[in-house]
Amino acid sequence: MAEIVAIRQTVAEGPVAVHLEQGILRLTLSNPPANALSIALMAALQAGIDRVRDDASVRVVVIAAGGKVFCAGHDLKEMTAHRTDPDRGRAFFEKTMAACATLMQSIVRCPKPVIAEVDGVATAAGCQLVASCDLAIATDHATFATPGVNIGLFCSTPMVALSRNVSRKQAMEMLLTGETIDAATAREFGLVNRVVPREYLTQVVTKYAQTIASKSPLTLKIGKEAFYQQAEMGLAEAYDHTARVMVENMMARDAEEGIGAFIGKREPKWTGE
Amino acid sequence: MAEIVAIRQTVAEGPVAVHLEQGILRLTLSNPPANALSIALMAALQAGIDRVRDDASVRVVVIAAGGKVFCAGHDLKEMTAHRTDPDRGRAFFEKTMAACATLMQSIVRCPKPVIAEVDGVATAAGCQLVASCDLAIATDHATFATPGVNIGLFCSTPMVALSRNVSRKQAMEMLLTGETIDAATAREFGLVNRVVPREYLTQVVTKYAQTIASKSPLTLKIGKEAFYQQAEMGLAEAYDHTARVMVENMMARDAEEGIGAFIGKREPKWTGE
Amino acid sequence: MAEIVAIRQTVAEGPVAVHLEQGILRLTLSNPPANALSIALMAALQAGIDRVRDDASVRVVVIAAGGKVFCAGHDLKEMTAHRTDPDRGRAFFEKTMAACATLMQSIVRCPKPVIAEVDGVATAAGCQLVASCDLAIATDHATFATPGVNIGLFCSTPMVALSRNVSRKQAMEMLLTGETIDAATAREFGLVNRVVPREYLTQVVTKYAQTIASKSPLTLKIGKEAFYQQAEMGLAEAYDHTARVMVENMMARDAEEGIGAFIGKREPKWTGE
Repeated sequence: MAEIVAIRQTVAEGPVAVHLEQGILRLTLSNPPANALSIALMAALQAGIDRVRDDASVRVVVIAAGGKVFCAGHDLKEMTAHRTDPDRGRAFFEKTMAACATLMQSIVRCPKPVIAEVDGVATAAGCQLVASCDLAIATDHATFATPGVNIGLFCSTPMVALSRNVSRKQAMEMLLTGETIDAATAREFGLVNRVVPREYLTQVVTKYAQTIASKSPLTLKIGKEAFYQQAEMGLAEAYDHTARVMVENMMARDAEEGIGAFIGKREPKWTGE
Repeated sequence: MAEIVAIRQTVAEGPVAVHLEQGILRLTLSNPPANALSIALMAALQAGIDRVRDDASVRVVVIAAGGKVFCAGHDLKEMTAHRTDPDRGRAFFEKTMAACATLMQSIVRCPKPVIAEVDGVATAAGCQLVASCDLAIATDHATFATPGVNIGLFCSTPMVALSRNVSRKQAMEMLLTGETIDAATAREFGLVNRVVPREYLTQVVTKYAQTIASKSPLTLKIGKEAFYQQAEMGLAEAYDHTARVMVENMMARDAEEGIGAFIGKREPKWTGE
Repeated sequence: MAEIVAIRQTVAEGPVAVHLEQGILRLTLSNPPANALSIALMAALQAGIDRVRDDASVRVVVIAAGGKVFCAGHDLKEMTAHRTDPDRGRAFFEKTMAACATLMQSIVRCPKPVIAEVDGVATAAGCQLVASCDLAIATDHATFATPGVNIGLFCSTPMVALSRNVSRKQAMEMLLTGETIDAATAREFGLVNRVVPREYLTQVVTKYAQTIASKSPLTLKIGKEAFYQQAEMGLAEAYDHTARVMVENMMARDAEEGIGAFIGKREPKWTGE
């Protein structure tokens, strides 16, 4: 795997534009005007995440969006159209929710770090998408809400991700009132890592992505996987698990190289092994 | 159930004053001087919460308090009086702790959102009461503490609620030192949602309550229940559960109405079905 | 046990200096230049924590450090030296990780509160040490990082403690980028309780320790143990457990004394029973 290959590749077909450059895979939601998570968009995003797993040319994933809206959640018109199905839409709603739950968990389970690059509105499942990423950088124009309660459909799946980022009373305020928070509040709540002026968003995200892409991909994979695993364990089980993970990590070529380089005061050369 | 009925009803008997107006049930602790959680007060508050479950005229509950103290926790004199019982008070202490644990969990499990309206001191089980509510609005005169450690009785039940609102080191500082935090710190810690000047407290709480009361009660019930359920699950189980909840919510009349109204750019009319 | 005995005792042998004064046991990491958690240092710190369990003369533990570095984590040179072992170091790495996991959990399970007194750099397992303590006070010169990712060894055990102090996105930013946060950010993230000027560090820590040492040691033991137990339980189980804890606490001599003193407006006299 060695060095990051300077592949520059853009695939602009479909509702997600895919761009790979220097190990950073940029998935840009392109479903105007609201980047609604239609079945088609979720499938395209899922495909983008899936291809990452075993593709050594990808070190970091960025999920961004075109237009003024980052993502406004599920496609309500698509869903409503299925109300005339013989089952009143139940099968289609099940399909939609299953696709969404799989997608969000795929981001968490993706062995490469995933960064949300957020400008504009992120609501409902769009807010969930931000919360599901490992990191999130937003502009001072970004806003966040879980407004399902306003349309009779509580943001019950979005809150799974939201409540794993934001404390209880803060999450409940968003969920029960449906009101919008600004980017500074989202940062204070723990939903985003940084807020930057709009003109610097891509630059700052790219800097984060490059920093992370410079690390050993094996180490990132080991660590990200262990992070979300131990988060669901009690303390003793978490230590048992991660102590084993650390030993395996120590035995890997990249740890030997990294520690050797650190002691020898030179730059490490990762092989991903 | 239809529209909120403009019932205006006050029952001032006993240690909890009950007032229902426009779907907002206000339970006001009235056990001066400290609003101590005596067996009688807990029973009255429990009755207030219990009646809410199947009462369609109630959309939101507010727990408030009369006097300078919001609630100073358990009634230490009542408990101490039982030290002369043949069992040295054990049975009475068990009764007290069971009543308290049931009450706090009833607030969490109540299908209607519960808002704490806090002015003055909230300590020990009084702090637990605030932490157990879905939302909390406090004045800049409100203070919070878990000072049981000062009297040889660690706030072990209060910390169940506290530590589900506040991060570990912050909770431990309150518990180990017994010291008091002000409202701004409580907001920073995540124990309260907003801090307002005293003269606007009821106005702000009522605005929150009215906002929430304007939503579909069925949607609120579905969402609140699912929120606390998924909070105790791992990620995969949480998504399995909430995806099912979302589908059922989609099939309900109020979601069809709410989404239809949103698409049609009109106000929804909730039926609670 | 009665009053705190004014024992003043310093043991300066080995990599941890031990000093006991007025119920406060100060364990000072003394392994220059980086206070690396070598096997020897971990054993000495473990011995310090172990002796505390049944030693009534110790009320509170402080973990401090000499020199400019609080603790830079594991001893990479010691570990690297074992790469030439027949098993390429695996047994030694297992021993190191087991010692570390046991040490960190011993701090959490220690019946006496443990306070981290942090000046300078706390990285990797050094950051984990801070996160594992019940409270942490830092100077404005303290910095924190989990930079294992820079050397190919993800901070997988440190993150067990870190992620129980700091919210997910913030923890992930530290872990994935390896970058350093300052003390103010650490306080905002919930990793430390207070930030003070360097010249006041020991004074502030001692004030905290004295405050806590003035409480009933039995009450502290009951409460600290219950805190970490309930943190791993669902709400119903947590209330069942802590309600029982509260009843037992009420039956203890120190609660009777403390509540009696409170009602009688006098100072309590703890017996630790």
